[in-house]
Amino acid sequence: MTVASMLSSNSMNVGVSNPKMSSKTSACCLLNRPWPSSCSMSISSCGQFGVSEKSKLLCGAGALQVESAPLFSVGQKFQLDDVIEAQQFDRETLSAIFEVARSMENIRGNSSGSQMLKGYLMATLFYEPSTRTRLSFESAMKRLGGDVLTTENAREFSSAAKGETLEDTIRTVEGYSDIIVLRHFESGAARRAAATANIPVINAGDGPGQHPSQALLDVYTIEREIGKLDGIKVGLVGDLANGRTVRSLAYLLAKYRDVKLYFVSPNVVKMKDDIKEYLTSKGVEWEESSDLMEVASKCDVVYQTRIQKERFGEKLNLYEEARGKYIVNQDVLKVMQNHAVVMHPLPKLDEIEADVDNDPRAAYFRQAKNGLYIRMALLKVLLLGW
Amino acid sequence: MTVASMLSSNSMNVGVSNPKMSSKTSACCLLNRPWPSSCSMSISSCGQFGVSEKSKLLCGAGALQVESAPLFSVGQKFQLDDVIEAQQFDRETLSAIFEVARSMENIRGNSSGSQMLKGYLMATLFYEPSTRTRLSFESAMKRLGGDVLTTENAREFSSAAKGETLEDTIRTVEGYSDIIVLRHFESGAARRAAATANIPVINAGDGPGQHPSQALLDVYTIEREIGKLDGIKVGLVGDLANGRTVRSLAYLLAKYRDVKLYFVSPNVVKMKDDIKEYLTSKGVEWEESSDLMEVASKCDVVYQTRIQKERFGEKLNLYEEARGKYIVNQDVLKVMQNHAVVMHPLPKLDEIEADVDNDPRAAYFRQAKNGLYIRMALLKVLLLGW
Amino acid sequence: MTVASMLSSNSMNVGVSNPKMSSKTSACCLLNRPWPSSCSMSISSCGQFGVSEKSKLLCGAGALQVESAPLFSVGQKFQLDDVIEAQQFDRETLSAIFEVARSMENIRGNSSGSQMLKGYLMATLFYEPSTRTRLSFESAMKRLGGDVLTTENAREFSSAAKGETLEDTIRTVEGYSDIIVLRHFESGAARRAAATANIPVINAGDGPGQHPSQALLDVYTIEREIGKLDGIKVGLVGDLANGRTVRSLAYLLAKYRDVKLYFVSPNVVKMKDDIKEYLTSKGVEWEESSDLMEVASKCDVVYQTRIQKERFGEKLNLYEEARGKYIVNQDVLKVMQNHAVVMHPLPKLDEIEADVDNDPRAAYFRQAKNGLYIRMALLKVLLLGW
Repeated sequence: MTVASMLSSNSMNVGVSNPKMSSKTSACCLLNRPWPSSCSMSISSCGQFGVSEKSKLLCGAGALQVESAPLFSVGQKFQLDDVIEAQQFDRETLSAIFEVARSMENIRGNSSGSQMLKGYLMATLFYEPSTRTRLSFESAMKRLGGDVLTTENAREFSSAAKGETLEDTIRTVEGYSDIIVLRHFESGAARRAAATANIPVINAGDGPGQHPSQALLDVYTIEREIGKLDGIKVGLVGDLANGRTVRSLAYLLAKYRDVKLYFVSPNVVKMKDDIKEYLTSKGVEWEESSDLMEVASKCDVVYQTRIQKERFGEKLNLYEEARGKYIVNQDVLKVMQNHAVVMHPLPKLDEIEADVDNDPRAAYFRQAKNGLYIRMALLKVLLLGW
Repeated sequence: MTVASMLSSNSMNVGVSNPKMSSKTSACCLLNRPWPSSCSMSISSCGQFGVSEKSKLLCGAGALQVESAPLFSVGQKFQLDDVIEAQQFDRETLSAIFEVARSMENIRGNSSGSQMLKGYLMATLFYEPSTRTRLSFESAMKRLGGDVLTTENAREFSSAAKGETLEDTIRTVEGYSDIIVLRHFESGAARRAAATANIPVINAGDGPGQHPSQALLDVYTIEREIGKLDGIKVGLVGDLANGRTVRSLAYLLAKYRDVKLYFVSPNVVKMKDDIKEYLTSKGVEWEESSDLMEVASKCDVVYQTRIQKERFGEKLNLYEEARGKYIVNQDVLKVMQNHAVVMHPLPKLDEIEADVDNDPRAAYFRQAKNGLYIRMALLKVLLLGW
Repeated sequence: MTVASMLSSNSMNVGVSNPKMSSKTSACCLLNRPWPSSCSMSISSCGQFGVSEKSKLLCGAGALQVESAPLFSVGQKFQLDDVIEAQQFDRETLSAIFEVARSMENIRGNSSGSQMLKGYLMATLFYEPSTRTRLSFESAMKRLGGDVLTTENAREFSSAAKGETLEDTIRTVEGYSDIIVLRHFESGAARRAAATANIPVINAGDGPGQHPSQALLDVYTIEREIGKLDGIKVGLVGDLANGRTVRSLAYLLAKYRDVKLYFVSPNVVKMKDDIKEYLTSKGVEWEESSDLMEVASKCDVVYQTRIQKERFGEKLNLYEEARGKYIVNQDVLKVMQNHAVVMHPLPKLDEIEADVDNDPRAAYFRQAKNGLYIRMALLKVLLLGW
């Protein structure tokens, strides 16, 4: 996914333009069938019938207070059929998802809320292993009372010898489950899967492409830690050229007002022009800096990333130079404001020194935990509606 | 499993001749213990005590209507202790299993039926990966409220270094679970496992041997799609020499009246004589044809299969010639009758052209879904009885 | 873990000396929250509030009858926060765990007891595969109504390329689960994990180090099979040099009175001096013997072990000589007393002849099953308290 396509799909709302849409609002809405595949696509369309908890619902551009309104018809804009890429979300949808995620923080194992997905099956269809992401999604499903079918060797489905298409695999797996979480090695695979499936698909990373739940949890963490998104100052540090995380984050933050971004990175992995141009076009202030201390003293968030050795090939000297350049340590903590936090998508290496973990401003393990709440929220909304 | 042994075991009913039988009708029947291994073998013998839904029960050669009869004693013929091979099933047992499978189509995630196996544990003991089969069984178990212990690297149990026998592994795993679904690389492994285990064993494929749940779902699909099995006309297309699927299907269809089979295959992978002789001995009409169009125009079912490249070794030119010979495409669909269907065990390659998927007569994804219902039925019957 | 360190930590009780202790008795005790990670550490401290079944509780050095006492404050000695090594257990704690394990033998799938861990999630974080151990723990969790997040390729978390520390992985996984079962290739890994985690950690084997649940199930099996531990005579046979199993067993048996141990092993794999010296220091009688028949005739337990080929490197002639030397067969059974039993940690090779399996004194499969009850007990105690 290039930024060019990001831009072109910027105003697109999957719920509206997705061709599955019309079939998803079928007569099945009148039935209360949790899992037949022929019908489950409509569940996300009419799931609001079953919403029992009180929730503040943001509708369209405005806010609307709804309390368990049984016949409330959500606008098309809120129709969440699949989660494919960060740019499918507008500001209002982000807010609505964050509301649901907040409510997930209060769910306990024995409360009734934790059984809201009882009887639902999620298939984690991973064409390449990603234990961290997989466990997070599976925990989310099970925390809500649902169950999981797991495969980490989904390539076996479509091995060179057998040659099954991704589409055929999806058609088979949708017969066994109610929602598919897909990890794939090819960019665009999630979109193809979603176009085929009659049940919701969540992209858990497709090659160098998208990993939208990571982008959502990053923004959610900033709001939870700092208390706001408008007016936020964020320093993006480390590998800004290759990390899809920081690129998606920059993209999503452009939806908020008075945001200022600082880019602090070794020369070989600087933020690319496409993102810079996009930010400028959206009126987002940004600047490059080689002074981590100065940036850290101004920012609400220092978002550190790992320099990825595998991107340097045989130029290991460049890697060694780059990785040692910007380290978050006690000196950085000293200049940071009291309310500011350090974030990191994890796993981390030595770009954050170990004793930083003990500072209350080290937010990265809370950030990882927020991934659980965001994924619980996505599963809930896709399977039961808002 | 050769047809010679198929013939010799033709009239065998596992429930009767299985040496576990006597122990399985032990005093444990009087207790209501769902999972102690010392007793669970008897559960399948006396499970009917717990059957709460109304079901039409076929007993012996005749049909019998039973409504939750608490002390009804099923005939020995119905005792289903293990599922090892297609030929263990007679026509009546097939009908009874299909009845149960039909009722499974109506089970919903939140209905009480979906909790009928709550508290039961299935171990999927796979000595070689088969994600499709494994997910289908695991979905079946979870759709009924049961839970699953999974291993796809069961070889590690009995690695060359450690050298544990299959029998010892089974004795250990039966201590952890209530039913074992076994996939093994050696023909006959499932029978050995069943002879050892005190809990039910389902064969999910043992090397070049049997894969009985696939055979059952094929016959079930024909009945569901066409509405009958007696008088059916089926064209078997593709690799008829190596596919255990078509061989098992031919065997099972011989149990029905007025069946006619057409064999359409490249010369190198023709149906073998043993099956032809068996069909003739059972009075089943069959003919070989090289004209797919003519066969397709006459048949109720066109059962296409994949030409398996791995069977050709280095003779790739023969493979290329064979694979291109009989393709199901729009031309074939045009001559097929309206009520007829295309089936395929999946995964498919280009032996069915992609646009065939959209024709309502393309039944192969429904067929895959039927695998779920058949497996739900087998799990229910083995753990709770009829 | 050397015996030197075993000795030094002999009187240590993890519950007392563990630095997590103070945080674990936090105000969260007043709440009834089963799984928030910020609080779950305290669950094992105050879990006894929720204990509904009657249980005989051994407190400190004396026995105490307690029936669901809601405000009963267990002594520090009983605080079980983590299960790291066999030597953390004193005689009283072993008895208390065995009491709980006994009650687990009566839990049935549909009884309420089987739901006691409903809503709890266990993460099986395996850095090397061990299907047998993993399935046993997962069965234990599911038998109690809990659920499981599984990974057998946890190394991927901390691959050379990514280089995440075990501590960081633990901090992430504790956000997804309520208890971690860790298998690791490095001795001491479990202790490091427990020092980091705010939720309970169970060591399921750390390299050449400890595997405490195996040690517990061995002692439990002796008590179950023979009816006592004081005054027991045990013959340890086979590889006594390398097997952590027999070393741990010898260590634990030293806690009982009038125990006599016989060591029967090929010269190349004799019991090491550290254990012999330790036993002597504890007043435990032991002798070496090369006469299996004589030992078998005297013992309550013949504990056979596998000669591990991988320990011999290229000296395969020594291996062949050693493995054939002491075999348990019908001749051995003939001289064994009626009440005596044969045990084995499994998997076994030909050090026990196959027809021994049929003798009622062959206890090794019951022993494997006891592993399930011990693990159920550990999970219950760690998550709910005594």
